[in-house]
Amino acid sequence: MQDDGVPFDDRGLAYGDGVFETILVRDGRPTLWEAHLARLRRGCERLGIPCPEQAMLAALPPRAGPGLAVLKLIVTRGSGGRGYLPPAEPEPRYRWRMTPFAPQEIRWREGVTLRLCDLRLARQPALAGIKHLNRLENVLARREWDDPAIAEGVLLDMAGHVVEATSMNLFWCREGRWETPVLDACGVAGTLRETLCERLPITSVAAGADALTQAESLWVGNSVQGLWPVRRLLDARGGELRAWPVAPRAARVLQDAGHDLLRYPRLTG
Amino acid sequence: MQDDGVPFDDRGLAYGDGVFETILVRDGRPTLWEAHLARLRRGCERLGIPCPEQAMLAALPPRAGPGLAVLKLIVTRGSGGRGYLPPAEPEPRYRWRMTPFAPQEIRWREGVTLRLCDLRLARQPALAGIKHLNRLENVLARREWDDPAIAEGVLLDMAGHVVEATSMNLFWCREGRWETPVLDACGVAGTLRETLCERLPITSVAAGADALTQAESLWVGNSVQGLWPVRRLLDARGGELRAWPVAPRAARVLQDAGHDLLRYPRLTG
Repeated sequence: MQDDGVPFDDRGLAYGDGVFETILVRDGRPTLWEAHLARLRRGCERLGIPCPEQAMLAALPPRAGPGLAVLKLIVTRGSGGRGYLPPAEPEPRYRWRMTPFAPQEIRWREGVTLRLCDLRLARQPALAGIKHLNRLENVLARREWDDPAIAEGVLLDMAGHVVEATSMNLFWCREGRWETPVLDACGVAGTLRETLCERLPITSVAAGADALTQAESLWVGNSVQGLWPVRRLLDARGGELRAWPVAPRAARVLQDAGHDLLRYPRLTG
Repeated sequence: MQDDGVPFDDRGLAYGDGVFETILVRDGRPTLWEAHLARLRRGCERLGIPCPEQAMLAALPPRAGPGLAVLKLIVTRGSGGRGYLPPAEPEPRYRWRMTPFAPQEIRWREGVTLRLCDLRLARQPALAGIKHLNRLENVLARREWDDPAIAEGVLLDMAGHVVEATSMNLFWCREGRWETPVLDACGVAGTLRETLCERLPITSVAAGADALTQAESLWVGNSVQGLWPVRRLLDARGGELRAWPVAPRAARVLQDAGHDLLRYPRLTG
């Protein structure tokens, strides 16, 4: 049984000493599997956690039935060590849970409202890009609002650069060019982002929030929810910074490029 | 039984969404208890975790026997929520473990060697000072060396300010004045540090590593290990930046001031 917890002395609990993945499973098959596995591998490597893939893969759930589910996979450095010092030969702990999933279809079609968060992300290159278990900044940012009409919050870093949404990556089209924030100081490099960047000429840029308000089209996306066009961008007080029409035809290039990855319906009209 | 683990969906495991304390227990009585409880309360308040002290206190272990032990106490936000969004009414989870403890007496008397770490702490005021569960920076810093002759690593932040050791606070005497790093952007405000600052005229300063090499006396300390005088400070490559004689009489003011708190032996000679 892998869907159980961890002991008191697990370093994932004690220090957030581990990584995780959240994977969309369609009709029993994980989507973007190679990209998720590659990021898990990179995260383990960065933290110095051995990532014996065979052991991890053997620990995975049996094929699920038809329909959509989300597989959450946690790898911790396991137990032991003296305080922060990890054991010389850690025995990583693998845990997973599969839960049924119903995507919010209306958001693909009608778009969403974002707000800028007050919290600024700290810049820590040693942890940037990987999906580690130290996620208090995301939790604090997500606690800033509870209006269900606001789908996501946009995070800037301490230098004023736009980085990501609390659980999604950002993409925009400005003067005809697709851009996404560079993630070398903070943020999580999403697997959908990575795959879209391989398929389209999307440039990673260091840009302030004005890049968002200047954009002809703004999107948020991750590998579970897919891509949502943004209709409105609010400041942290709720004031409107910019509104966009329902994603214009030209902007659908992004959703089209990702269509076969998650196989969510595209915008119509 | 509180000395058990947490379930898969505990937010402490998932996001490091919680706080902890590590408390020296002498002859069944926790030391610096009020200071630990106050920091736990501040941490919970900062993160928006309800901290019903009666429930937590009721969950604590029965009095231990004679001798020294360490009580580790973890409070997480509990289970639930949608992704990073916490549940509207979280039910915190309390866990503790008591383990026997043998302090490293030789370090009080003969002093220790420190090294500067390569890793720089990110500056995040929203999380500074509290003892939250997002401790990957400390883990990465502590992984930088495994020479047992080096007792601790000194952490600077991204701005070049000295902050703390990986699991201890720093104190030094410079031109006759006692100083400790200000902890408004990162670092953990230790309970021993807090109590010493109430008793002695110790100034919190923003200072670079040169403050350490200029110091007449340098110490590291926490509420479990007590205070260690520093004999040598090395750079990250192992080169000596400064050496000090066995703590001169004048510097023992610090150890004297903290003596009754943990009741460890003082320097002699």
